[in-house]
Formats: sequence, C-alpha cells, structure tokens
Amino acid sequence: MEDFDLVIRNGTVATASDIMQCDVGVVGGKVVALGRNLAPGRKEIDAAGKLVLPGGVDSHCHLDQPMEEGLEMADDFRSGTISAACGGTTTVIPFAAQAKGQSLRAAVEDYHRRAEGKAVIDYAFHMIVSDPTEKVLKEELPQLISEGYTSFKIYMTYDDLKLNDRQIIDVLAIARREGAMVMIHAENADCIAWLTEQLEDAGLTAPKYHANSRPMLVEREATHRAIALSELVDVPILIVHVSGKEAIEQIRWAHGHGLRIYAETCPQYFMLTEDDLDQEGYHGAKCICSPPPRDKENQQHIWDGLANGLFTVFSSDHAPFRYADPKGKMPGGKEVPFRYIPNGTPGLETRLPLLFSEGVGKGRIDLNRFVALTATDPAKMYGLYPQKGTIAIGGDADIAIWDPHKEVLIANDNLHHNVDYTPYEGVTVTGWPTITLSRGEVVYDGKEPQGAIGRGEFLKCGLPDPARPRKR
Amino acid sequence: MEDFDLVIRNGTVATASDIMQCDVGVVGGKVVALGRNLAPGRKEIDAAGKLVLPGGVDSHCHLDQPMEEGLEMADDFRSGTISAACGGTTTVIPFAAQAKGQSLRAAVEDYHRRAEGKAVIDYAFHMIVSDPTEKVLKEELPQLISEGYTSFKIYMTYDDLKLNDRQIIDVLAIARREGAMVMIHAENADCIAWLTEQLEDAGLTAPKYHANSRPMLVEREATHRAIALSELVDVPILIVHVSGKEAIEQIRWAHGHGLRIYAETCPQYFMLTEDDLDQEGYHGAKCICSPPPRDKENQQHIWDGLANGLFTVFSSDHAPFRYADPKGKMPGGKEVPFRYIPNGTPGLETRLPLLFSEGVGKGRIDLNRFVALTATDPAKMYGLYPQKGTIAIGGDADIAIWDPHKEVLIANDNLHHNVDYTPYEGVTVTGWPTITLSRGEVVYDGKEPQGAIGRGEFLKCGLPDPARPRKR
Amino acid sequence: MEDFDLVIRNGTVATASDIMQCDVGVVGGKVVALGRNLAPGRKEIDAAGKLVLPGGVDSHCHLDQPMEEGLEMADDFRSGTISAACGGTTTVIPFAAQAKGQSLRAAVEDYHRRAEGKAVIDYAFHMIVSDPTEKVLKEELPQLISEGYTSFKIYMTYDDLKLNDRQIIDVLAIARREGAMVMIHAENADCIAWLTEQLEDAGLTAPKYHANSRPMLVEREATHRAIALSELVDVPILIVHVSGKEAIEQIRWAHGHGLRIYAETCPQYFMLTEDDLDQEGYHGAKCICSPPPRDKENQQHIWDGLANGLFTVFSSDHAPFRYADPKGKMPGGKEVPFRYIPNGTPGLETRLPLLFSEGVGKGRIDLNRFVALTATDPAKMYGLYPQKGTIAIGGDADIAIWDPHKEVLIANDNLHHNVDYTPYEGVTVTGWPTITLSRGEVVYDGKEPQGAIGRGEFLKCGLPDPARPRKR
Amino acid sequence: MEDFDLVIRNGTVATASDIMQCDVGVVGGKVVALGRNLAPGRKEIDAAGKLVLPGGVDSHCHLDQPMEEGLEMADDFRSGTISAACGGTTTVIPFAAQAKGQSLRAAVEDYHRRAEGKAVIDYAFHMIVSDPTEKVLKEELPQLISEGYTSFKIYMTYDDLKLNDRQIIDVLAIARREGAMVMIHAENADCIAWLTEQLEDAGLTAPKYHANSRPMLVEREATHRAIALSELVDVPILIVHVSGKEAIEQIRWAHGHGLRIYAETCPQYFMLTEDDLDQEGYHGAKCICSPPPRDKENQQHIWDGLANGLFTVFSSDHAPFRYADPKGKMPGGKEVPFRYIPNGTPGLETRLPLLFSEGVGKGRIDLNRFVALTATDPAKMYGLYPQKGTIAIGGDADIAIWDPHKEVLIANDNLHHNVDYTPYEGVTVTGWPTITLSRGEVVYDGKEPQGAIGRGEFLKCGLPDPARPRKR
Repeated sequence: MEDFDLVIRNGTVATASDIMQCDVGVVGGKVVALGRNLAPGRKEIDAAGKLVLPGGVDSHCHLDQPMEEGLEMADDFRSGTISAACGGTTTVIPFAAQAKGQSLRAAVEDYHRRAEGKAVIDYAFHMIVSDPTEKVLKEELPQLISEGYTSFKIYMTYDDLKLNDRQIIDVLAIARREGAMVMIHAENADCIAWLTEQLEDAGLTAPKYHANSRPMLVEREATHRAIALSELVDVPILIVHVSGKEAIEQIRWAHGHGLRIYAETCPQYFMLTEDDLDQEGYHGAKCICSPPPRDKENQQHIWDGLANGLFTVFSSDHAPFRYADPKGKMPGGKEVPFRYIPNGTPGLETRLPLLFSEGVGKGRIDLNRFVALTATDPAKMYGLYPQKGTIAIGGDADIAIWDPHKEVLIANDNLHHNVDYTPYEGVTVTGWPTITLSRGEVVYDGKEPQGAIGRGEFLKCGLPDPARPRKR
Repeated sequence: MEDFDLVIRNGTVATASDIMQCDVGVVGGKVVALGRNLAPGRKEIDAAGKLVLPGGVDSHCHLDQPMEEGLEMADDFRSGTISAACGGTTTVIPFAAQAKGQSLRAAVEDYHRRAEGKAVIDYAFHMIVSDPTEKVLKEELPQLISEGYTSFKIYMTYDDLKLNDRQIIDVLAIARREGAMVMIHAENADCIAWLTEQLEDAGLTAPKYHANSRPMLVEREATHRAIALSELVDVPILIVHVSGKEAIEQIRWAHGHGLRIYAETCPQYFMLTEDDLDQEGYHGAKCICSPPPRDKENQQHIWDGLANGLFTVFSSDHAPFRYADPKGKMPGGKEVPFRYIPNGTPGLETRLPLLFSEGVGKGRIDLNRFVALTATDPAKMYGLYPQKGTIAIGGDADIAIWDPHKEVLIANDNLHHNVDYTPYEGVTVTGWPTITLSRGEVVYDGKEPQGAIGRGEFLKCGLPDPARPRKR
Repeated sequence: MEDFDLVIRNGTVATASDIMQCDVGVVGGKVVALGRNLAPGRKEIDAAGKLVLPGGVDSHCHLDQPMEEGLEMADDFRSGTISAACGGTTTVIPFAAQAKGQSLRAAVEDYHRRAEGKAVIDYAFHMIVSDPTEKVLKEELPQLISEGYTSFKIYMTYDDLKLNDRQIIDVLAIARREGAMVMIHAENADCIAWLTEQLEDAGLTAPKYHANSRPMLVEREATHRAIALSELVDVPILIVHVSGKEAIEQIRWAHGHGLRIYAETCPQYFMLTEDDLDQEGYHGAKCICSPPPRDKENQQHIWDGLANGLFTVFSSDHAPFRYADPKGKMPGGKEVPFRYIPNGTPGLETRLPLLFSEGVGKGRIDLNRFVALTATDPAKMYGLYPQKGTIAIGGDADIAIWDPHKEVLIANDNLHHNVDYTPYEGVTVTGWPTITLSRGEVVYDGKEPQGAIGRGEFLKCGLPDPARPRKR
Repeated sequence: MEDFDLVIRNGTVATASDIMQCDVGVVGGKVVALGRNLAPGRKEIDAAGKLVLPGGVDSHCHLDQPMEEGLEMADDFRSGTISAACGGTTTVIPFAAQAKGQSLRAAVEDYHRRAEGKAVIDYAFHMIVSDPTEKVLKEELPQLISEGYTSFKIYMTYDDLKLNDRQIIDVLAIARREGAMVMIHAENADCIAWLTEQLEDAGLTAPKYHANSRPMLVEREATHRAIALSELVDVPILIVHVSGKEAIEQIRWAHGHGLRIYAETCPQYFMLTEDDLDQEGYHGAKCICSPPPRDKENQQHIWDGLANGLFTVFSSDHAPFRYADPKGKMPGGKEVPFRYIPNGTPGLETRLPLLFSEGVGKGRIDLNRFVALTATDPAKMYGLYPQKGTIAIGGDADIAIWDPHKEVLIANDNLHHNVDYTPYEGVTVTGWPTITLSRGEVVYDGKEPQGAIGRGEFLKCGLPDPARPRKR
C-alpha cells in the first residue's frame, strides 16, 4: 500500500448506512483506506470528537443562469461554489438552461463558459429543456446524454419554461430510451395564472399573496399529472421541491402502485411557512419561492417524509436573487406586485447545517439518513456515484468534517454567497463543518474558504441506476 | 497497524449503501481495514469476481422451540445454524417462547440450555410474550431487556399464544418505557376460528382450505389494529411476515400519518401462492404457513415493497416441521384437517439465495437493498448493529462471499436443515455463497459446513435505535 | 273515493325525493290522496306557507332502559314520546336491552311492559344483544326476528355490554341468515380502559378528560374492525353515531370496496366540540357522550357526509340522564371522575329543528336530504317503510307541518323531556313544527302536546331491504 | 277537483324514494292526483301488475349534431326521440355544439332548426363550448344561461373540441357566477395522441387497439385534473361517462374532501368490456367509444357506484354512427386504423331496459335507485325538475308503464333508431315499457311508436340546484 497523502484520524465516519470509528487514508485525492491506526500520512487531520461525513451533493441549485434582460443571478460559479464549500458541500449540479429557440448544445456550451475557471469544488450540469424540438429530441438529447449530461429538468409552470403534456411525454420517452433522469417542477401554470389575475383584480398584490396564487391544489394536480405521464411512458421521474401533504399523498399513492417516483424537498419547506411571506415592509419578498412554503402541519409531513424514505433527495434549490437589485426581490426599491418578484431563495451554504441541526440534532432523522439525503442518494440519482456522495474505497475524498456541537448563529454577513440576505437570518443551528475537503484538498478550514479558484472540475455523469425502469 | 489474520482480496464489497472494489482486513475476528492492496494476511481469500457481502442476519426463525406434546421442531441450534451458515447467514435470532403460566425468565433460561454448545454461528434471542402477568410486565421484562433481550414478539392469533388488546397495550407500554422493539404477528384469531369452523362444517378440510381460513381481510384487520395500538401507546412496532396488498396499504397509510410502523416479509410471499397449498396428494401441507401465501398480484406488491423501502426486514420465518413426523405436516401419515397441520415452512438456508436470484439477479432490487433487507437493517432493528449486519471497521467479520453466477438447483437432499422437505424443491437459483465467515472463521466452504459445533456465541442486544420514538 | 277525515291543504309537501304543492287527504289515519284542490275533509288544516313533511323517525334513542342500581333514565315512554312529538318526530325505536344472563325474550317482554299504555306516538324496538348464548343465537334471535324485532345493536365497548369479535361474528351470521339489521357501537374497549387508567393515574379526571380517553383512533380502529367482520360474514351493518373524519374514511374505504356499510350520525357531532366538555364548574359533564364530540374540522366532515350520502340515518341517540340525580351526570352533586359519569345527551325534541336550521336553513343540505335522513331512510333501514317515514299513498299520516321561518330560542324549560338540561340551551334555531300528526291525529299543536297517553302503538318491523346482501 | 283526462289505475307507482299502490290522475298533461280509487278519467289505463315509473330523462345523447364533412349522425330528432320513447324515455337533452370560430348563439339557433317539428318527446339542450372566446364568456354564455340553456359540456380531448386548462377554468368561473352546470369529458388528449402514434408506428391499428390508446390512467389523470380545477374555482361539476375504478377513486377522494363532484355512467360500462372491441372481422369497431369499456373488475366497480350513490346520473351517451356509412364505423367498407373510426355507440332505446334488467332484476340496485339514476336526478341536475323526472303533483305526466316480467331479445331490427347495429344484439332483458306517455299522451303503445311528429316541445332549463356551491 502506498503512503497516504492524507490521513483523517480518529473521527466517526458515517455513510448512508454505517457509522464507524476509523481513520480515512487518502492518496491522489481518492479514499484508499478505512481502518484503525492507519500509517501516517503526509498530512494529518485530527478528527477526534468529530463526524467525518461525505461532502454534500447539492443537486438542485441555480448559478449564473442567464435570466431575462436586467435580472442577474447574484452567484456565479465562484461565489456559489465557495459558499457551498463553506457549508460542507463538495459537489453542485446547477442547470444549463435552454432558452426557447436556443439549441440545447449551445446552452450547455454557454454554461461551460460560465463555469470555466471559477469553481472551487466539482460540478456537473443538469440541462433544462424548455424547447423540445425535433432536433433536440432526436439529436441533441441523445448525444448530450452520451456525453455525460444524463439528467434534465422540465417545468410545468413559468411561461418561458413550461412544457405542455405532449412535450413532457416526448422528453420522458427519450429519457426512457437513453436511460436519463428527468426532474419535474410540478405546478399547474394555468391555475396560477388565473389565481394571479383574480388576486390582482382584487388589488391583492403584496408578497404574501404569492402563497395564495399557488395553493397546494396547484402542486397536487401537477404532481398527479406528472406521475400519470411517468406511468404512461414507464420511466422513473423525480419530483423536485415537494412542499407538503397533498403532493406527498400523490407520491405515496404512486409507490403503492409500484411506480418509481422519486421526490426531493428543500430546507424552506420545514423552516418557513407562508407567514414568512407576510413580514413587515416588503421583506416577505425574500421568502418567495415556488411552490411556496406552507404551514406547520405541512412541515410535519415534510419531516415524516424525510424520516421514512419518501424523499430521496434533499437539496437547496438555491436561487440567488438580491433583495436590492434593479430587478431583484424588491426591484429598484419598489413594491411591485408579487408576480414580478423573482422566485427562489438562497441556501447553498445553509442547507446542510439546517438539516443537521433540525433533523439529526433534534432526533427527527438519524445520521445515516442525513448522509443519504444530502450526498449519497443525489449522487446515485444523477450518475455521480461512486465517485461522489460517499466515503468509500475508490471514491473521491470529498469530505466534510463536522463539529456536531458547534453553535452557529446564522447571519448573512457570515455567509459566502453574493445574495444580500438569507431567509434564515437569526436562526441558531448546532453543528457546522470545521473542514471541507474536495478530492483531499481543504476548501474550507472552518473559518475561511480555501483552495484555488478554478480548481473545481466538471463531472461527466454516468447513466443513473435509479432511472432504469425496475423489473416488474 | 497490526498484521492481518485474514485478508479477503480483490472482491466487490457491498454494504447497505455502498459498493466498492477493495480488500478486507481482519484481525481477531473483526474487520479492521478496508482498502486497496492491503498488506498480506496470515490467511488470504481470493475474492476476485466475487461479491463480499455482510453475512445474513435471520431475525425471524424458530429453532428447537418447545411445542405441544408430541410435536418437535426438526431443527435445533446445531442443524439450524449449520443450515443458516451454508446459505450465507451468520447470525440468527430465534425465539425464547414463554408458555402460559411460565415465567419469562424461565423461558429464556431454558432456551439458553437448548442453545448451549450447539451453534456454529452467533445468535441472539427474541422473547415471545404469551402471558403478560403483572410480574412479567413490571419485573421480568424490564430486567431481561436490560440484560440484552431487547425485542419480543406477540401474537394476535394462535390459542396458546395470543394476547388480547389490553395485553398488547400493556406490553407495548413497557416496550416504550424501556426502549425495546415489539414484533407482532397480525391475524385476527376470532375470524380464523369462525372460518375454520365454517369450512369444517362444510367438509372442506384439505390443506388448500388453510388459505380460505385466513383470507387477506383477517391480516388486514389485525394489521390495522396493531397500528392503532402502536399509535395509542406511541411506540414503534414491527409487523412480521406481511403477505400482500391490503396489509401493505395499512402500513403505507400509517407512514403517511407519521407513524413508525416497520414491516417484514419472507421468501414464501413472493415464491409461493395459495395454489401451492393445493398439490397432488397431501403435499400442499408443506406450504402451510400463516399468513398463507396469496396470489400473483400480491407477490408483485411484495416486490414493490421490497424495492421501495416499505419493508425493512426480510427474514425466513423458518419453522421446521417435518412432513413425515407423528405430529408433522402429515401427522403419522394421516390426512388430517388443515387446522391440525403445524404452521410454517423451512427456509433458513434458501432465504438469501432466493432473494438474491429473484431480486438482485432479475433486476427487481439492487445489491444495496439486498444487504439492507437481509443483514444491516435487521441488525439495527434488534440492537446488534454495528457488531453485526455490515462490513465496516470495528464490526465482526461475518461475511458471505458470493459467486453471483453460480447456478444451483435447490434440492432438499443438498440442504443442511433437518426438515424432510423444502417448498422450493426444483427451483433453480443463480448466485450462492462460496464461503461463509463467522468472526473471520470459515463456517461454510462452498461445499460443506465447517467450524466447531458450539463456536457460536450468544449475543446480548442493545436497545435498538428504531424503537426510539421519533421526535415529531 | 271516500270522504276525507282530514285534508292538509295548500302546503309544500316534501318527500325524500320530491317537493310539490298539493293537498294531502287522510282517511282512517292513512294518506289516501295527494292532489290539488282535494274535496273537503271532515277536518282541515291550512298549511299555506308551511312545509308538510313526514314525521321524523328517531331510530336511536334510549327510553326507560333498566340501568345499574340507582341510576334511572329520566324519560320513559310517556315523556319521551311527548318530547319527540313536540319536535316533529312520530316514530321512535328505542332499545330492549338484554342484561348479561338474561334471556332476550325476557328483555323484550319487560320492555313491552315499560312501553304499555304510555306512548303518544308509535314505536318499535331494537334489541341490544349483550349475551349471545347458544340459546339466544339459535332460538331467541330467529324467533324474535320473525315476530318483528328485526334489528339489534351490539357494543364493542362498555363492560356490561361489549361483545368480543367472535360473539360479533356469531351475531352477524344470524343477522345474515335471518335478514336482520345489526347496529354497531364502534369503540375499542381496551384502548379506552387503558387511557382512562393513564388519565386517572395522572389525576386527570375532570369531565373534559372523557374526550382524551376516547380519541378518534379508538373509534377508527373499531370501525375498521366492524367493517372487516361485516366483510367476513358478508352482511350489511350500520355503524351508529359516527363522530368524524377518521371513522368516515374507513366507511368510505368500505364503499369503494363494494361493501354495504351504513352509517348514522347525530346532532351532537356537528353542534358540539370537545371544548363543550370543558365548561365552568362541572357542567361539561352534560355533554359527555361516546364517542365524544370532536373539533370544528370534524364537524365539517360530518356535514359533508350528511350532504353527500355517506350517512343514511340521522338520529338523536337520546340518552336521558339528569344532571342533578343521585347517579346522574353530577352524581349526588359530587364531582366524580369522568369514568363514573353516565354517557349520553338528551335530544329527542331538538334533533329535527337543529338539522333543519343548521342544515336546510344554512344551505348545507336540501330538504329532500333532510327528509331522507330523518324519516324515510331510517324507516327503510329498520323495516318500517312504507308504513312510516314518508308521505305516500297508503302510508300512515305521520306528518309534521313546519313553519320554516319560526325562530325558537332553545331553553330546557320549554322542552318536554324529563331531563333537567339540554346541551343546546340558548341556541336559536329557525324552523319548528307547528303541528305534529300521528296517524292523522294531532299530537302537538305548536304549543302543547296533544293526544291521549297510550295512543301510540307498537310496530312490528319487517325484514329491512337494506339488510339484504347486494348481488355482486 | 276537475275531471281527469286520464287515470292510470292500480299500478305500482315508484319515485326516487317511494313505492306505492295507487292511481295517477292526469289533467292537461300534468299529474294532478295520486290516490286510491280516483274518479274515472276520460281515458283509463289499467296498470295492474305493472310498474308506473317516471319516464326516463336521457341527459347525455347526441342527435343530428353537425359533424366533419361527410360524416352524419344516423339519428335526428325524429328517429332519436321515437327510439327514446320506445325505450321508456320521455325527455332527451342532446347537445348544441359550438364549432371553433362559431358563435355559441349561432350553434344554439342552428340546433333549434334541426329540432324544429321533429321531436315526439320534449327536449332541452346542453351546449358544447369548444371556443370560449371573450365574447362567448362575457356575453353569450350569461345570456344563453338566462334563456334556459343552463348546462354545457366541455372536452379535455378531441382536437376539434378540447379546451386547455385555462379555458376550462374560465368556463367554470362563468358557470359558478351564473349558476350553470358543467359536464366534463375527462381524458388526457396528449396521452391519447402519443399512445395512438406509438400503436400506429407498431402497426397496431385494429379496432381493439382503441382501448390500448386510452387506458385507465388517461381517464384517471383528466378526472383528477377536472376535480382540481373545480376545487380551484369552487364550483360543482359533473364528470360524464365514468368507466371504472381509478376514475371512481378520484371522485370518491373528492367526496371525502367535501367537493361537489357529480358523476355519470352509461350501459356500455357494465355491459361491454374491451374484449368487445376485438370481434371477428371489423365488428369491434361498433363498440368503440371513449372512454373505452374496461374489464370485468371495472364493471363491478360501476355497479358498486350505481348502488351506493357515487353516480348521480345514468345516461346513454347515444352517439349514432352507422357501421356501413361512407364515414361510419367501417368507413366505406374499409378497415381503417382505429383513430379514424367515429367514437360512440347507440343506446337511447336500450338504456332503461338494460339497467332495469341487469340492475333491478338482478338485485344490484333497487327500484328507487333506478328511478333516481334514470329520471329524477338527471332532471334535477339540469334544471328540469319538478316538471320532469318524477311522478308528483304538478309535474308533467311523463310516465313509462313497465311490465317487469316481459322478456325481450334485443335485436337491431326491432329498435327504432336509424343506426344499423346495436352493441347489445342478442342480449335478452327482462322488463320493458308497455306504454310510454309524454304529457299524458301515448307515444309508445308497447308495439309501435305513437304521437304526432313534432309534438315534442323545447324545454327551457332552470338553474339547477346541484350547481349551487354548498355552504361549508
């Protein structure tokens, strides 16, 4: 056995299924040994009393995505990946979004340019398919899948992104044939449009009415429809950012009928409620995201689903829009009707600490579920496993060393994204990474980001196993 | 690092979450290293092309249990553990059954005597509580739990075993207070009794009518009731040997309501149907077990539940009654009415190969689920983890090395139990262990059982984490 | 056509399906004509601007039932039937209750003696089977059914009444064979006993804890079990006094599986909540009934079920215990633990006005549903149709003429029962009968009870159609 | 009381709730008296031994609807209403269908021209809204509703008819405001289109593949979506021609959530299965309708729903396309791919006898449910009650006198429609009308149609009560 470049010593190593006291030996950025009393490494990290966890895989985040004229994402690959690393995440999978009329290939190439030389941790791309032309379906998608872009997201809402049912079916059929994974944003666009008009006609345009414009039935209906289309084509799908009970019930129904419907949720659905959209002044705009946060009862359903395996993936859905930008959350400082407020909340850096503190710390989920939800299962879901998502022989040494007892008061001033707020300002969490390693290199030392800008590498994704239709 | 007693080299190691190419280093019967190119061991096993899996934990099997006068279990701890080892299982958890009127302590002591010096692999005990007297509840149970008997089974049917609702509640309340895990056999005794009488009155007493005497509604009702009692007391339970759709629906309902209801199933529920109770001659008696096997559609629901996480535990429910015994399946060679036929089928040795071949081999479940269902999760469920149930640093080197391509035609002549039949005679499976290791020692070499009789040790169980009520 | 004894002229006649402007002609206590401009009757009632409705059939009420030593029902057949008549009810079906050890025949005969010469409206008997001995099952039940006692009630709770599952099955099997209707009080006795002990051990014995001792799961479990037993025996049943959502869900599930499960609810389940058990002083005791009232959300589910046909029968479950009696609601003026407070609330007189005012008046149900729920369907359910329960040619002229606009402030002083309170004191209803007719005779004139004591006749019930298993 | 024009004597009169032995007196085409021994009428019908039932209201049938170039409906108002009358139906509500681009008013006027002078029984119109322009929504619909066209149908499938979700919402919003009833054909158009292409690509174009192109999930999805849109707008809807279990489950779910979702089914869903689309030669084309017939298990669910009140309306969905027409079921005698075969089956005349024989005759539903499903509830649903749909004082004397024992072998030669086949050829039914009366006039005498062509009158519909949102 070669000499170790690095040994992480005496920590408590956890995977999605196991917990063990042992050292971790790293060579060439890979984990090569797990054991007691490993031989000395060129570098050593003392992890006594610490948790040694797989670095997080944030499989749903938006970075430097081209937006409509005048609107700009606050985070690019530089600030976004730094922020992620400082919160214990070592892989991000943001979106190369196709504009209507654009070729998918062009979208991917443009996105590579945006990422080039900026990331401090590794990254892959999902594609967003907004214009599934014949050429996209027959040529681009199959080819791009074969090149390592094996997952794509489609929308059932948002005028510039939404697909109709036939387009969804066509995309699902390609995914089935090629073995790719499809993520679906499930909200019924027409219901939202109608409700929004009703609210506006009634003069109800404050941020809090965003929640009224997207009630649970809007998400439930689209979830049911997405499941039906998946059943039609006989291909697994993943429903992203599930917000509560009625959508969960549809997914549970699908499981009872043998369908492979995966589901994702995000911190905002157990940390926030619709009341957070109704803050003094215009600050509720900060918590506008879609689907909107629900209520306490729905939060409990989210926790139940995190604990009992209904959810496979826990992501941030980091969508970095500044409050004070000309087209930001409070565009140009004006109180615009809610429909003009960009949707989404920031969360790359706080994702893991919030779930750790509220979930593991408060006994709602165990440490293995934490690892599964935040790292292993997203990596498997999108074809990055076994390189990413675990601490196992042969995998990348992407590791977050956690102090489970560290108390941190979340303040935007201390976060590393470029957004000018966090919805979790003032929340105290217990547990935070003290070191984050990417391929064995320190990218966060517990105080400051580390590692050369641009050291992060692009990851080609393999065909994900969960996308393979199950034998029935 | 010490020298290795044993190195398993070049295999594909799988845990409940990971798959990795690596060597496994063993010292003193414990796994101490996982890595590439481990230093030589005193002994070496070449596992190239093989799967290196945690040895199975069969957490539901009956061995040498005292029965009514004249009826004897075919397998004691000797033949039972040998048979288990030859099928890749390295831990068994049979039952110390309290007779009505007996003290629980006496039952446990008696069972220790039966096990003493006979086992070739390690074993723990569940207790069967059939007579929850004041003394049992207030003194014996708490004390025995503290001594390492942390799980017990209760019955909602069988005249000599069944508890009424109040007794179940009392037992659950103790389990909650002490942190123990309760397994429940869920069938409504009164429904069965009435149906049996109806069938007998109509002269319908052949083995196949056993299935008619215990239709799905009998299991569904008791499952619903068990869930309600668990909800009342606010304590997790595990429903054993779930047979099909309607019981699964009740469990799924419970999950949707945030209840911690665990579930187990067994090979007979995807391998057999009620038609197997209707064989030439009296041979259907061999497949009589309770609940009875159902039909093809229910088998599919069992597979769905194994794949999607509804089931946590996959066990054999090995119940070794000979066909040709005086009180066996065909008692004294006479065709008795079905109610007099002992319930249960043998399966310690075939449990893993059947699930591997039909499940992993046919693409219905993946290898991680196989490990989780057969080893890791049962070990966690009953407080044996991390000593048992996984391949991880610090755990026992209980390992089964599988040849995933080996074709085996199941024949009772080649099995090692003492039962005179197997329900799976003539079934061909692909995949079988080539070596089974218990604490680093070979107990099966792919041809013959190995290891000294009596080398198996009794395991005290810790308080299982899954029994802890989840924070809501 | 003969001359009419009575013509009710110019009213709006409603049945369970129709509403029509017409006169009603009565001869010999029977409706013989419906039409416009009927020939003059010897007596005439001007019903212009009024509703002419079938008199109510209260199919669940307790009158002069023998109770434990010292406890006495406040209402006998005299006060009970007078009270009923003054609230628009023209038929009551109270209970002949078998004591354990008593013959059913003896119970029926005793009950006839209690009724004899006292009733002002007609009455039939349900039997309560509390001791289904061989003789009861094989001889008494079949014989009594053939004599016109075609329905019986069984209890899953109350120590002196409850049957175990096997006894329930045996009773259901007789009902199936003989074509009788079985009413089931569905609450799990053991759960209640355990919860009661827990509460008492914690010193929580005030009336409000009655609700805690019988949470919804206690009713849900028993409802599921009753449905399963009904499915087993393949015979329709009626679940009495359903209190809310979870029980309704079970019943709805049964309907979706083709089972004939009928359901009843009562005013207390939409008028009261568990908060009514928590009144100043000890007055909460007045609202103690089982199942207990739930909360606002459950009230809405009750209304939904009344409107959409889930419920077939709406009754009072009149259980007349005085507040100030030696063994009454506040026994001997002492604040006893809730378990010693007699269960039940009075409601014979207020049943119809409450449903009319809150249901029809507030647009939650229509007038046809009102008639169906309160008169026609109970009459059909228990074999009294077409003699009772409707206004149709050939049926008894049991009619309530309603002033739909009359405002009445409910006050116990103005009610005619012998109970010393009403749970609805101070409630204002809109709509009250102005005349009640029994077989064409005025028994209530809008101010005072009328009609000779003892004029009410015993009704033999036919075999009810709904009890016939449906062809599938 | 005036002299009777007609007395129907000694029959058994049934309404949706009652059954009574009595005479029916008719003056001026209206029922004016129900009673025993009515005075002699100018005409008398002896109904001894017969059932006197409300004439059927067929609220879903297609007559003389303009179709695409070359395709013509076989039945106009003449043959259609004659056929209806000969099967006991006295009111039809066919469709005035708006073509895309056409004004709704023009469609209604055109349809009046088609009906003018042809009908032998009374008729109303539903409108089909296929192009909900601003003008249609804001002007035409409100005005037409106020003129007596109070119901309209919308389609979720068929290219020339289907509305998108936003259009559906807009139509529902008008219905809510104006108090109209919306009928919805619930199938997902895009799913059907994709499946059809897949089947055609695979060369599977025989009639039987029609069923494969519209599997249950296609109907289930659209049903869920229709329910969600109804919930959004808070307005009742009626789902037409429900075909089986999964759609029923969605409707039942809605009922459990307090939603007013009404449902209709048709004879083809309990008489036919998908196997009927797979007949010798091309004859399966005759049974092509949408949704397609399902299987035996689904038929049972249809029966359960008819019996337990899930369905409110039972109609024919008579869609009269000839087999041998140039654009008929086998267009020009050529075996075209299934997608070109006109959808729908004839059934105006057989609707009532099939339900009577299979339902009432075989004990699956009772006579009151028969009347409710076929006459009273459709009349209420569409604002024709109390003029139509019952036998009650003041209502039209639209009456079918049934011989419940008459055996009839259904043969197309004996039917009175203009279609060249019936799907029920060779089926024997027990029970058929012997006389059909429309406003007191005989329109069918048990042998031949009677009554002057054109005597049927157009009916303005009132605002239907069931369309009124229920108070919650």
